[in-house]
Amino acid sequence: MTVDPAGRLADSATRVEAALERALGAAPLDGETARPERLTAAMRHACLGGGKRLRPGLLIAAGRLFGRDDEGLVLAGAALECIHCYSLVHDDLPAMDDDDMRRGRPTVHKAYDEATAILAGDALLTLAFDLVADPAVHASAEVRLTASRELARASGLGGMAGGQMLDLAAEHRPTSESDIRQLQAMKTGALIRYAARTGARLAGADPDGIAALTRFGEIVGLAFQLADDLLDVEGDSAALGKAAGKDAEAGKATLVALKGVDWTRAELDRQIAEAESLLASFGTGAEELSALARFVANRDR
Amino acid sequence: MTVDPAGRLADSATRVEAALERALGAAPLDGETARPERLTAAMRHACLGGGKRLRPGLLIAAGRLFGRDDEGLVLAGAALECIHCYSLVHDDLPAMDDDDMRRGRPTVHKAYDEATAILAGDALLTLAFDLVADPAVHASAEVRLTASRELARASGLGGMAGGQMLDLAAEHRPTSESDIRQLQAMKTGALIRYAARTGARLAGADPDGIAALTRFGEIVGLAFQLADDLLDVEGDSAALGKAAGKDAEAGKATLVALKGVDWTRAELDRQIAEAESLLASFGTGAEELSALARFVANRDR
Repeated sequence: MTVDPAGRLADSATRVEAALERALGAAPLDGETARPERLTAAMRHACLGGGKRLRPGLLIAAGRLFGRDDEGLVLAGAALECIHCYSLVHDDLPAMDDDDMRRGRPTVHKAYDEATAILAGDALLTLAFDLVADPAVHASAEVRLTASRELARASGLGGMAGGQMLDLAAEHRPTSESDIRQLQAMKTGALIRYAARTGARLAGADPDGIAALTRFGEIVGLAFQLADDLLDVEGDSAALGKAAGKDAEAGKATLVALKGVDWTRAELDRQIAEAESLLASFGTGAEELSALARFVANRDR
Repeated sequence: MTVDPAGRLADSATRVEAALERALGAAPLDGETARPERLTAAMRHACLGGGKRLRPGLLIAAGRLFGRDDEGLVLAGAALECIHCYSLVHDDLPAMDDDDMRRGRPTVHKAYDEATAILAGDALLTLAFDLVADPAVHASAEVRLTASRELARASGLGGMAGGQMLDLAAEHRPTSESDIRQLQAMKTGALIRYAARTGARLAGADPDGIAALTRFGEIVGLAFQLADDLLDVEGDSAALGKAAGKDAEAGKATLVALKGVDWTRAELDRQIAEAESLLASFGTGAEELSALARFVANRDR
């Protein structure tokens, strides 16, 4: 069987986009008073109309491996994407990475203003915990609550937000390989790991299945980061939709800076080989995930 | 029976402080990689060692009315306090209200830096959804999930974050009474309403009990805001721990600016009378909540 991972990702992205579009409508929901127009618009700017939707795509593909593929899974993916998008909005702020462009469009604080960007990020982060609690995500409240709590752990102090803190502290300072690996496991790895693990959980995988997909998610997270670092060195700004060479300029700690391009390409190959051996026990049904891992490792933007 | 509301609040505050202290320890939890020292310290600066803890105090008092008073309730209160503290950290940022002092100490972006303050707020917001999911909060995952989802609705686009957006937009612009009431119901009202309602829910109140406490929370939220506005006009900066007169200076829309001090005092009396009539059906057990409402209305800082 041949699988087109870019096509599968694009299909998932379309479904996630629709879920986010519904979640960011104008009408207030139960328990809300009103939805201020400007804040809604800034949140929509931050999370509609762009992005590969890698994280929800991985969550949905992991669920499909265990036989589930419905809109509840898409909603869990949309929750995860809200976290990812909030982190981009806040990371782009002048006090952080100070980026003017994102996905070929002005960043939220450029299109609106800093205060609105801070609040849009906050409200997207908050929205994630509304979406993941939706009854469509899973019939069992216990399972939804686990998905919600693990999302908090992957995103917060000991996960993504902590990783961004380490990343800021590492600028213009010598950093060891193990420090870089820890920082990246937190900053980008935690959400990708969560995606694979949670797709399996929501589709009813047993503990062994969840453990296998957790490890798979860790590998994809590392591959994603290595590919990202290579793109920053070798990529084309126009295709990236943001400035290339920015990491090196900012003195950011990356493995490619520390170990070189050849080492990084070889490490990527090793990761993909491990992913494929991990998936072998799932038979041909895992071809989609395997193709997705190769796609992440070889992407050009 | 006489109840000392300040004493009761102080007792709750001590218990909430201990829960936050435990939640912000150095050791990573399951699902976390590591807890960066600087980010942990900034989060501790933001939410330990200060504050009246009104919201968790109200949650705990509402639970007590329905016969529950244990550490699980305190943990739900700590989750709510994380949301409140994150909002203070972000509201104090230069791009928002630009405050240097809070509770008599430097604000987080002054004690650390802006990037750290943004991340500390993000991670506190995220931590709230970890804490509220703790099994100690309630035996039923369904009830915990409801508490979590309602927390998201009260805090996000259609609640507190949306209210802050409206507040920023209202500066230096004429605003009607109904606009001010809506923005305050969102910015400060939503969390206080949530506190009363959730304390009742977690203590096993029936739908009528939850509805009564929801209304009570709305009244306390309004009383809190009116008292706050009066304090800004008449208060003493030293007692407040922040600059008095700041609202008027910033051209902030308040009911006291629109309707005057006498009207505001009379409105406060009307609110307290409604709260007491609402609580009458609960008998003497409601004396603590009644005293709390009066305390909120008459506080001097």
